[in-house]
Amino acid sequence: MGTASAGIKKGRSPDIAVILFDRPAATAATFTQNKFVAAPVTLAREHLADCRGRTKAWIINSGNANCGTGKRGYRVARDSCKALAAAIDTQPEKVLPFSTGVIMEQIPDGLLGKGATLAARKPAQKNWADAARAIMTTDTKPKGASVRLNAKGSSHVITGIAKGSGMIHPDMATMLAFIATDANLPVAPLRRHLRDAVSQTFNAISVDGDTSTNDAVALAATGMAGRLTQAEQKRFGAALLDLCFELAHQIVLDGEGATCTATVCVRGLRSDAECRMVADSVACSPLVKTMLHARDPNIGRLLMAVGKSRADLDPAAIVLKFNGKTAYTSGTRAKAFTEKVARRCFAKPPLFIEVALGKKKTQSFVTFTDLSCDYVRINSDYRS
Amino acid sequence: MGTASAGIKKGRSPDIAVILFDRPAATAATFTQNKFVAAPVTLAREHLADCRGRTKAWIINSGNANCGTGKRGYRVARDSCKALAAAIDTQPEKVLPFSTGVIMEQIPDGLLGKGATLAARKPAQKNWADAARAIMTTDTKPKGASVRLNAKGSSHVITGIAKGSGMIHPDMATMLAFIATDANLPVAPLRRHLRDAVSQTFNAISVDGDTSTNDAVALAATGMAGRLTQAEQKRFGAALLDLCFELAHQIVLDGEGATCTATVCVRGLRSDAECRMVADSVACSPLVKTMLHARDPNIGRLLMAVGKSRADLDPAAIVLKFNGKTAYTSGTRAKAFTEKVARRCFAKPPLFIEVALGKKKTQSFVTFTDLSCDYVRINSDYRS
Repeated sequence: MGTASAGIKKGRSPDIAVILFDRPAATAATFTQNKFVAAPVTLAREHLADCRGRTKAWIINSGNANCGTGKRGYRVARDSCKALAAAIDTQPEKVLPFSTGVIMEQIPDGLLGKGATLAARKPAQKNWADAARAIMTTDTKPKGASVRLNAKGSSHVITGIAKGSGMIHPDMATMLAFIATDANLPVAPLRRHLRDAVSQTFNAISVDGDTSTNDAVALAATGMAGRLTQAEQKRFGAALLDLCFELAHQIVLDGEGATCTATVCVRGLRSDAECRMVADSVACSPLVKTMLHARDPNIGRLLMAVGKSRADLDPAAIVLKFNGKTAYTSGTRAKAFTEKVARRCFAKPPLFIEVALGKKKTQSFVTFTDLSCDYVRINSDYRS
Repeated sequence: MGTASAGIKKGRSPDIAVILFDRPAATAATFTQNKFVAAPVTLAREHLADCRGRTKAWIINSGNANCGTGKRGYRVARDSCKALAAAIDTQPEKVLPFSTGVIMEQIPDGLLGKGATLAARKPAQKNWADAARAIMTTDTKPKGASVRLNAKGSSHVITGIAKGSGMIHPDMATMLAFIATDANLPVAPLRRHLRDAVSQTFNAISVDGDTSTNDAVALAATGMAGRLTQAEQKRFGAALLDLCFELAHQIVLDGEGATCTATVCVRGLRSDAECRMVADSVACSPLVKTMLHARDPNIGRLLMAVGKSRADLDPAAIVLKFNGKTAYTSGTRAKAFTEKVARRCFAKPPLFIEVALGKKKTQSFVTFTDLSCDYVRINSDYRS
């Protein structure tokens, strides 16, 4: 792993990270569901298929998303993979490209490849922290986490870094995250474990309801440690979920302009997906988010946000709780949920909001940020 | 028409308006599609059915939405209709109630009825301006308009007032508007004309993507002037559309914290509804709205907002124009759309954004506001 300054970001701060594997690593990745995908997303998908999920290197740049850049943008991404492949003596399709930053601007020819080659020159195992810093855009903090998994006679590590602060919303991986483990797993279960973990973590956070054109989560298993048994694979899945949860929460806590977070849990509709529609409606409502920002229990706004969702629900059935305290039931405000009780709930976020809409055992969680003036300021100023 | 201060709003500002008709007026109304509807919306729907679209009076209060208030809230709304009906000697079902303001708080017993009776005591034909003021919440300006329609030998007037500033989004009538005409039309065509006009005006504006629990547009034809012929009814529909357009644009221009507006027009998908999904995705994107606020042509955000919509679209087909100038086509930025040209487009709003996604003759327009710190401030402070 190594980093370099290629001059894509303003100033001389590092804007390229490369992650190298000694031998081809079993790799799984999830990408954005936005219909406009950046050139590196298109190319990473192609390379991942061409190398049958066995990658040797990842190139990540910040400062420019290489999206809406047409054929030239695609060529720029491909050239960077070729340059790094030549430098580390492998095939270009074993290199995956990832980009983040401003949309619809071209990256000058050669910049990415030169930066990646430079970054690959002095790789070091301990460089996760530097890489986490090199992939930041509006992030105020680098994001990383590591979990240990004990298996029969040996011990495995899963380590990941992530970036993300704005354009964050549950719809596949909603930022960039790079995870590697020394455990030995084939590509197919790796993919399954990643998909499961992503749906409950990176796909369950929202800063602004906007989904990026460049989102990706990539996971590699280098297999340096021993092969996992079936039972151990299950525990690997649980450990991966923990790691993704930690990274996802680092992202939402560093949400643009965020001063606090809340988690909404919606239960009881026909399916988890329908519960998610309601949770999204709450998590994206500017009026709920400004209420949270004000620490002001103007909780009627919750009813509005639940009711405006497209989900099939019975408004008479709703029970609303804040931090476990019933606020609304039987079509009216709960007597015990006085203004004083409400103020106490809101004074110390994170706030836990429960929306019960029926008796079915379905549910969906979304963790989201408040909406502050700083969010407006950051996004009225920012063009990296 | 008359107004009164019932003490629902803070201070002594007028918070009740009544609109009275000398004889039962043919009445059509559209209501919010939010699943949580306020007690007055439920009751207004019932009364409108019970009186077969012939109403004698409307009561409107600001300062409290009477929503999420259970059986008691329903009784409070019904009692207010009964009180006014007794005062003007009519049946309660000929009175329609409307409320706007904070959600999930009770209105003290008797307040509404007393206020309405007081307001009805000195009715005056010219009181539209006072009524427009009495129904304001976070509005900074009263909203009203009037159009004249010349028919065979006589002249008709359509006059309306509206309120709305936040919780504004296209999903049926997204605020309160009250319109009356002296033209003579039966209830059925009145309903049809109102539905058509609302879909192109009040349902095509967005401030924050949130839809109120109390939205309503009511239209009454008193029939004081002569009966309209079929051809004249058509022209009535066009005049009503003009009036609604004017009122809707007064609302969006007075959007909470708004410093400017933009109109997005999406064309070419399989249906108008699918075009609307894309237009909504653009109009509600915080990143598009903050870009507009900054007057900063960071137009890659438009691609993101188009791509994240759930509509079935081909990203390769998109052509993007700002104020008639092509900015993006054939998968890349148009050469002539330099930063200088872009800055000039953005410097002087309103901005007109065209998104062409195919060759079909479908389209949808939405006019929306920017997102400013003042929006956050207003909604972090406001509890009327």
